[in-house]
Amino acid sequence: MKADLHHIDTPAAVIDLPRALRNIRRMQDRMNSLGVAFRPHVKTSKCENVVRAQLEAGARGITVSTLKEADQFFAAGITDILYAVGMAAHRLPHALELRRRGCDLTIITDSVVSAREIADFGRAHDARFPVLIEVDTDGHRSGLHPDSDELVKVAAVLHEGGMQVKGVMTHAGSSYELNTPDALEALAEQERAGCVSAAERIRAAGIPCPVVSVGSTPTALSARDLHGVTEVRAGVYVFFDLVMHNVGVCAIDDIALSVLATVIGHQTEKGWAIVDAGWMAMSRDVGTSKQQHDYKYGQICDIHGQPMEGYLLVGANQEHGIVSRAGGGANDTGDIAARFPIGARLRILPNHACATGAQFEHYQALSADGALAAWPRFHGW
Amino acid sequence: MKADLHHIDTPAAVIDLPRALRNIRRMQDRMNSLGVAFRPHVKTSKCENVVRAQLEAGARGITVSTLKEADQFFAAGITDILYAVGMAAHRLPHALELRRRGCDLTIITDSVVSAREIADFGRAHDARFPVLIEVDTDGHRSGLHPDSDELVKVAAVLHEGGMQVKGVMTHAGSSYELNTPDALEALAEQERAGCVSAAERIRAAGIPCPVVSVGSTPTALSARDLHGVTEVRAGVYVFFDLVMHNVGVCAIDDIALSVLATVIGHQTEKGWAIVDAGWMAMSRDVGTSKQQHDYKYGQICDIHGQPMEGYLLVGANQEHGIVSRAGGGANDTGDIAARFPIGARLRILPNHACATGAQFEHYQALSADGALAAWPRFHGW
Repeated sequence: MKADLHHIDTPAAVIDLPRALRNIRRMQDRMNSLGVAFRPHVKTSKCENVVRAQLEAGARGITVSTLKEADQFFAAGITDILYAVGMAAHRLPHALELRRRGCDLTIITDSVVSAREIADFGRAHDARFPVLIEVDTDGHRSGLHPDSDELVKVAAVLHEGGMQVKGVMTHAGSSYELNTPDALEALAEQERAGCVSAAERIRAAGIPCPVVSVGSTPTALSARDLHGVTEVRAGVYVFFDLVMHNVGVCAIDDIALSVLATVIGHQTEKGWAIVDAGWMAMSRDVGTSKQQHDYKYGQICDIHGQPMEGYLLVGANQEHGIVSRAGGGANDTGDIAARFPIGARLRILPNHACATGAQFEHYQALSADGALAAWPRFHGW
Repeated sequence: MKADLHHIDTPAAVIDLPRALRNIRRMQDRMNSLGVAFRPHVKTSKCENVVRAQLEAGARGITVSTLKEADQFFAAGITDILYAVGMAAHRLPHALELRRRGCDLTIITDSVVSAREIADFGRAHDARFPVLIEVDTDGHRSGLHPDSDELVKVAAVLHEGGMQVKGVMTHAGSSYELNTPDALEALAEQERAGCVSAAERIRAAGIPCPVVSVGSTPTALSARDLHGVTEVRAGVYVFFDLVMHNVGVCAIDDIALSVLATVIGHQTEKGWAIVDAGWMAMSRDVGTSKQQHDYKYGQICDIHGQPMEGYLLVGANQEHGIVSRAGGGANDTGDIAARFPIGARLRILPNHACATGAQFEHYQALSADGALAAWPRFHGW
C-alpha cells in the first residue's frame, strides 16, 4: 500500500508536520523571549520523533505523566525527566531504579504523608531524590496552597529527611475553562505569583528552592512576564486542538493532528454520511460541548485538511462515526451522498489531541510534499 | 512485585473472573433456551483469554469491529469471523488475504455502491465473499430499511455478481437509550421482526438468505421469542458496566470490570481524594450522564469491589482522578483523608467497559482466591 493519504488504512492519526513544527517554534521562541527554560509535557504525543523535534528546538528536559513515559524516553537517551504526578510510595522502587541507571528523574509531592514516604524510602536506600513540591494556584486539582502551613512542613520533611527540595511546581489547568486574552493573562500571572510566593516561603524557612516550574498551554501562551519563574511546562501546544481553539490560543489552521477516515455509507434521508472513525479513533472526549462552539466529536475537513464549514462528526459508536451538518441535516439531505461519496477520505480535527492520539499505535507524519512516515507512539502504563 | 491487588502497579484493569464467567454463562444459557446460535462481539475485550471462555461456553464464531481483530483472533485459531462494519473497498485485499489463508470471514454492506465494489473485486480475484446485508431496524446508525427498494437491489447485485448473500444482520443500538423491561422487549421484537422481514423479502426475490443475525446486549437479554432469527450477537454483556446497569440489564454486582487505583493526595477542604486513575484509565466516556443515575467517571468501590455508597470519580484529568461524594463534598470534608488515606487502593466501576478496557495493554484477571493473571489485549487498527 502506498504511503499517502489516499492509500493508507483508516482510521489514521495524521500529524501535519509543518504545523507541528511551527507550533513547537512558536512556543520555544516565546519561552526564549520570556527568559525561561521550557520543559514540554510529552504525555500529549508519547512519541520519540515529536519529542526530538521539541528538544532540537531548544527544550530543556521533558515532563512525563507516567513512569512508563520516563522508561521509554530514558531508553531513547533523554535523561532530564520530571514525573509530574504525585509520587505513590509503591512506585518509589521504580523511580530509584531509573535514577540508579543514570536517569535524572525528579519526582513531586504535595503532602507530609507522601514526603515522609519519599524521605524514608530514600534514606533506607541511600538515595537523595530531587523533589518538587506541588503548589495549587487555581484550585482545580492537586497541590498545596502557597500560603498553607503544610507547604513549609513538606519542604522541611524532605530537607531534614535528606532529600533535595529542588523547587516548586504548579499547573493552572483551569485555564482550559477560559476564553478571553485578559482572563488568560490574569490566570498566567496568578499561576506565576502563587508559585513564586510558595518558593519564597520555603526559602524564608532556610531551605534552598531553586526551581519554580509553572505552566499549561493557555497560560504559557498568555503570560506577559515570568519574573521569578525558572521553567515552563506545556503539552498540547505541539498539536493544538478544538478545545484550545475555543480557549483562544490557536487558529483552526494551527491544529496539527487530525484523524483520516473513509466514508463507508449513508443515511441519505437523515443527511448522514457514515465514516470508519468512531469514538475508538476520536476518543470519547467531547471537551468542546461546554465551550462557546460545540464541535461534537470533531470538525470535518477534506483530505487536504481544509475545514468543510458546518460539517461535524455529530455522533460516534465504537468504529462508526456520523458526519452531518451541525444542528441536523434537514436542509442538506439531498446531496450528502454526492458530497461525501462512499470511499471518500476526510480528516477530522479532534477536540482533545492528548485523548485522540492515545487511541493510536502510531502517527502518520505528513510532510509538506505529501509523504507520510509512521511515527510510533506507546500506550498504557 | 507480588501479583495481587495490593501489589500490582496502578492503574490496572481488573476482571472479576467469577462475575465474567457468570455473565458468559447467563447469556449463553439464554441463547440456548431461545434456540439460536450466539456469536459474541469481541470488540469489548479484544482478549483471547476472554474469547476462549465465550467459545468454551458454547458460542459459535465471533464478531469483530476491525480487521485487526480478525487477524489476531484468526492467528489464535478462530476461523468463523463476522466483520460487522460496512466494508470499505480499500480493505477488500486484506479480507481476501484472510480468506485465502483459511479464515471463514464474512463481510457486510448496506449500499449498492459498496455491493458492486465487493462483487467487482471478488470476481476480479476469483473470490466469492460471503456477505450479510446490514438492515436498519431502529434508525440509530447504518443499514437499509427492511422495506426499502435498495435492500433487494443490494442482494441482487451481490447474487448476480457471484457473491454469496449469506443473510442479513442488524444491531438495535438504540437499546442503550432505554431503561424499562417493556421498552427493551418491544425493541427486541422490532429488531427481530425487521430483520426477519428483510430476509423474507430477499428470499421472495429468489435469492437464498439463510442467516438472520440480530443483537445488542440489552435486546439479547430482553427478547422473549426469536422466531426466524438464526444467531444473536452481543459484546458488552461479558463485563457489563454502569450504562448497562442504568439500562436495567445487570446488577451492580454483575459488573466484572473495574479500574484499580491508588490514592495519591487530597484536597481536604473540598472533600476530594486524588487517585492515579484519570481519563486515560477510565476513558472519557461519561455515558451515564444522560441516564437516570449519573455516575460521572465511575462508581468508587473498596479494594474488594464493594461499592462505597455515594462516592464517585467526579472529575478526571489525564492521570489524575478526583474522588468525592456525588453532589459535592461539603458534608464530608473532615474525613476524606481518613476514609481514603494516601496509598489506599480503590476499584472504580466504569461507565462503558469497551472504552475503559481499550485504554489498557492487559487485563488483570482476578480469581475467587485473589490470584491475578495478566491477560493481554490489543489496541489500534
